[in-house]
Amino acid sequence: MRNLPGTSPATRGRVVRAALELAYVPSDRGRALSTRTTRRVAVVSEELTNPYYPELIELLRRELGAHDYGLVLVADAQSGEIRPDVLADGSYDGVVLTTTRRRSALPRDLTERGVPHVLANRFLDHPESPGCGMDNEAGSQAVADLLAGLGHSRIGAVHGPVDTSTGRERALGLQVGMLRHGLHVRRELNRRTAFSHDAGRAAAAELLSLPEPPTALVCGNDVIALGALSAAREAGVRVPEDLTVIGFDDIPMAGWPLVALTTMRCDLAAMARIAVELLLDGIACGTEGELKVHRLVPTLVKRGTHGPPRRGPLASPP
Amino acid sequence: MRNLPGTSPATRGRVVRAALELAYVPSDRGRALSTRTTRRVAVVSEELTNPYYPELIELLRRELGAHDYGLVLVADAQSGEIRPDVLADGSYDGVVLTTTRRRSALPRDLTERGVPHVLANRFLDHPESPGCGMDNEAGSQAVADLLAGLGHSRIGAVHGPVDTSTGRERALGLQVGMLRHGLHVRRELNRRTAFSHDAGRAAAAELLSLPEPPTALVCGNDVIALGALSAAREAGVRVPEDLTVIGFDDIPMAGWPLVALTTMRCDLAAMARIAVELLLDGIACGTEGELKVHRLVPTLVKRGTHGPPRRGPLASPP
Repeated sequence: MRNLPGTSPATRGRVVRAALELAYVPSDRGRALSTRTTRRVAVVSEELTNPYYPELIELLRRELGAHDYGLVLVADAQSGEIRPDVLADGSYDGVVLTTTRRRSALPRDLTERGVPHVLANRFLDHPESPGCGMDNEAGSQAVADLLAGLGHSRIGAVHGPVDTSTGRERALGLQVGMLRHGLHVRRELNRRTAFSHDAGRAAAAELLSLPEPPTALVCGNDVIALGALSAAREAGVRVPEDLTVIGFDDIPMAGWPLVALTTMRCDLAAMARIAVELLLDGIACGTEGELKVHRLVPTLVKRGTHGPPRRGPLASPP
Repeated sequence: MRNLPGTSPATRGRVVRAALELAYVPSDRGRALSTRTTRRVAVVSEELTNPYYPELIELLRRELGAHDYGLVLVADAQSGEIRPDVLADGSYDGVVLTTTRRRSALPRDLTERGVPHVLANRFLDHPESPGCGMDNEAGSQAVADLLAGLGHSRIGAVHGPVDTSTGRERALGLQVGMLRHGLHVRRELNRRTAFSHDAGRAAAAELLSLPEPPTALVCGNDVIALGALSAAREAGVRVPEDLTVIGFDDIPMAGWPLVALTTMRCDLAAMARIAVELLLDGIACGTEGELKVHRLVPTLVKRGTHGPPRRGPLASPP
């Protein structure tokens, strides 16, 4: 039925005639049991309403499609982590994990079950699987350079969750980068929060209501930065005149003229391409072998939310 | 192995011992072949980077999860429509279609193959399947009432694609609603475009560059309206002083203080709940029977992008 070589025309004819008589419909489930291949890749993302992930998933879909693989998005972890059974029952030829936490057991579970998989965007503390993500520390150091160059010294930060590599590495990179300029983020100007607009808005609102608010806010990602811009709008704080706001990722929204966010650009197309290459290697050659981990260096995109620090108190009119 | 009633303890013991000896791993594929059930529902969405869909999908995931169904997102239609084979091979107990076009053949294909399915958000010209969406015409008539009440008469529109029910119905409703007030959208102020920020921005930029630009822009959805706000920002047109912009959907972004879009609110939680109820009916009772189609009435959310029409030409300072 699949027109494989090594079948004689006579046999093929008999099979096709039998299939026609029985009104046979090819079944992916049945085929998967016999060929052990499905041409489907599962992409795991637990944060679909964070606009970063739909972008990454769309790029993964295109890359996989170019290699004749369909993408199926598995997003049914309501609380806690997704169960490996869902990914390891043979429904998928491979798995791309996009929202892995630093101490997740899922990659090891998949390795033990022999499921080819790759990490995209986030990493584990102890590398277990191939993957592709950003050099987040280098990116945050570039942000520190920008702010020091503009003359900021009272710098606030709204970092992402500490249990994600992106959240942790970006916070670490900022600290290192600022130290190089003899700067640091004071404890009272340092916040950690979820990667969401509303969480960023709440944290930024707190910082802006301090007696001595920061003149610049470094945000753990663009979505947090959008929340910071919302908080500034609500507080009547002008950006960039009164406050500099810096994001990370360069999601499409960051480039909208309505937003015009200055941010660190992550090349998601390259990330998706490399992640899919690594996965296809794993599917072809098994999960053994050298552990390949790629880090892409983000680049600064200067738009409309950065400037030199405001002189004088916030409350007085210019 | 599945602890079903009607199996004697002795038989169960023998099966479990054999499974242990063979290191048996339960296979969803194998189980699906024997029980004809997968506890998985496929959600088809071809516009994942439009933030409306991740919201709807997240709500569908929660509703399905509450009924012990996993959600799998099928998004591999690169161009043209998704093939029914992908949905009808028994991998899924049912299907939710979210981006159906008005003349799509996919619902009929699924009916013919006996695959329980439901339409969410968009409808066909000739109802074929149960579904839940918005009363788009009523929503657009409410927009017309708002603009007439504010005193606008030079009204522009950037509608969505004519091959979607949402695009067509919202355009129709606006026309009907404006006629009631003795108004109409002139041909040169009427645009049709894709449901995207960039398309909305391009169309709005054209309208704003006319010798006599509109004083209000009605947009086919919030994403188009965000594009219109970007175009206004680029052209130095103040919102709402110089220009009123109205969206449709009330995606979370519309409520961000940074955006504060006046829009028609669609209750996506109710849409997801009803769509899943209809689907579970179909899974339990088959695809025969009365064709149930629900329409939810959207409500106006007044935020910061509407006001009375500007008096005098755009170019002169106030």
